[in-house]
Amino acid sequence: MLKVGINGYGTIGKRVADAVAAQPDMTVCGVAKASPDFGADGAVRRGYPLYSARDDRVNAFREAGYELAGTSDDLIAESEVVVDAAPGGIGAENLPRYEAAGVPAIVQGKESDDLVETSFNARANFEDAEGADAVRVVSCNTTGLSRLVAPLEENYGVEKVRATLVRRGGDPDQTGRGPINDILPDPIAVPSHHGPDVNTIFPELSIDTMGLKVPATLMHMHSLNIELGSDPSSEELRELLGGESRVFVVGDDFSIDGTGKLREFARDRGRPRGDLWENCVWGESITVKDSELYMFQAIHQESDVIPENVDAIRAMTGLADKEESMRITDEALGIGLPESRESSAVVSPV
Amino acid sequence: MLKVGINGYGTIGKRVADAVAAQPDMTVCGVAKASPDFGADGAVRRGYPLYSARDDRVNAFREAGYELAGTSDDLIAESEVVVDAAPGGIGAENLPRYEAAGVPAIVQGKESDDLVETSFNARANFEDAEGADAVRVVSCNTTGLSRLVAPLEENYGVEKVRATLVRRGGDPDQTGRGPINDILPDPIAVPSHHGPDVNTIFPELSIDTMGLKVPATLMHMHSLNIELGSDPSSEELRELLGGESRVFVVGDDFSIDGTGKLREFARDRGRPRGDLWENCVWGESITVKDSELYMFQAIHQESDVIPENVDAIRAMTGLADKEESMRITDEALGIGLPESRESSAVVSPV
Repeated sequence: MLKVGINGYGTIGKRVADAVAAQPDMTVCGVAKASPDFGADGAVRRGYPLYSARDDRVNAFREAGYELAGTSDDLIAESEVVVDAAPGGIGAENLPRYEAAGVPAIVQGKESDDLVETSFNARANFEDAEGADAVRVVSCNTTGLSRLVAPLEENYGVEKVRATLVRRGGDPDQTGRGPINDILPDPIAVPSHHGPDVNTIFPELSIDTMGLKVPATLMHMHSLNIELGSDPSSEELRELLGGESRVFVVGDDFSIDGTGKLREFARDRGRPRGDLWENCVWGESITVKDSELYMFQAIHQESDVIPENVDAIRAMTGLADKEESMRITDEALGIGLPESRESSAVVSPV
Repeated sequence: MLKVGINGYGTIGKRVADAVAAQPDMTVCGVAKASPDFGADGAVRRGYPLYSARDDRVNAFREAGYELAGTSDDLIAESEVVVDAAPGGIGAENLPRYEAAGVPAIVQGKESDDLVETSFNARANFEDAEGADAVRVVSCNTTGLSRLVAPLEENYGVEKVRATLVRRGGDPDQTGRGPINDILPDPIAVPSHHGPDVNTIFPELSIDTMGLKVPATLMHMHSLNIELGSDPSSEELRELLGGESRVFVVGDDFSIDGTGKLREFARDRGRPRGDLWENCVWGESITVKDSELYMFQAIHQESDVIPENVDAIRAMTGLADKEESMRITDEALGIGLPESRESSAVVSPV
């Protein structure tokens, strides 16, 4: 069992910990957290050894009644791989610490691509991370776009991607975020950083992205136009995407009209925290016209990168190859949603 | 003075009434309203003769203490032109009444293009409405798109428009509308009705539109990609749009980040009801790349069609030609906003 340490136990870190704990070939050797809030209580209840992410917070944890296994330096020493899920910028500061300790490390999408050997998306470039010591799992939106581009590129070629990202203003627990009753071009300048970020996975891809922020917290929404190298039918496209394990083609008969019903659907199915690890693509929206694909997809910003972190661990340590890793991850988490009630097909991993 | 009757006194009707009253060559001979709410009080305070839009509501007005000038039939008989601003579908029912009375009539964008001689946007096709008896002023979003396409088509040719319309869920007074904390593809199927609606103004234009609804009430937002027939610079585009009287190029130095600050800007300038009759285009977003224009524009759904209704009146009755009508309308309302504090240019009408 590979010992995985999680440095940073917020939105991403706690989900990565649970996903690692669910795998048959790895274990959580500990989680490091910056403050003794309800998240720390959750970690202890799950049986994860608790470390203080910052040396100057050790007393705060003790005063709150937590028994610490040590600080993040101790956690790094305990780990065979570290998943860094600290806030943006802190991961970059931590990378030299992992390197000094000789421990392979994964950072999240807010860190710069320059700091690592490769940016990572399991479906698109698993092999690039094999044997690497420092890998960056791209952000939620970039993950969602990469999962689409990969099969389209393989089957038809992609001439150009034009994407409008209608982004949630903040996560449900980010009470200081906005906007309220507003629609913000964000950034106002075109393109947004998302296009160049996708280029860390597909260096040759022509992609322009525009970003907006709206008063919603549940998921992002992508309005997509993708020029293909050939002219498949809308039905063929729908079948292709339905065959991707991490794409949930939302069937018409489910009457799911937006992000709220999607999350309710996930909660009904007993998903932990109501998470949706898959791209959620409205089947009815998939439209090909003169080689141009139009579609809507919703991206759950809190969870779609979680399976990618698990696969990155396997790629870096050689635990499994791409197909095997994605299959194990998907089975352990229960990834793969049927398109409709009638659909008996169990979606298989790539 | 041309006598204009306003049949329907809601969001659009009350604004058209005030805009007509502000013109030097026309007068409001009366407004017809369906119920005696605060809007009726506003009409009386403005001195507009008040009519009951429905025969069965006459008593309701009397019981509420209003003195009626009659019913909508009486108003039609009084009018030389009627602007119908009744809820969607009612305008279609009313059209035969206007025809029977021999009174030219304008209906709003929710009615079908099939029912009228022409759909109308002053900048794009003023001449088509000259002498017509039944004209439809296209909806707010179609008006916003038409005002852009017209100068682009004239100067460069337009190969294709791809637009994502991030729409406000409802107006501030539509308390029953949603969504709350959600992002809805609406409609899920591509394209939305907006593209075909723009084709009522530009029949040959290649345009695909996708619609979304979000929890906001202040304005719509358009994320646009427009393939041009040539490759002008971003600066040239910005200058072109800045020269359009009904396009407000939002200057960088105003630090306007979204629809909330736009509306506050309009209120600061003393605009009635904080209205923004112009397309609001973020100057910084105007980006041309390989003949493709990207940009964001915000559209005030309650007011951008108001000057168009006024111009349609002149087109139908021959009161003025396109240039003169738009100039008179803009001057009377105070249309035309400077791009920046330093800008001394008074934007002139087309």
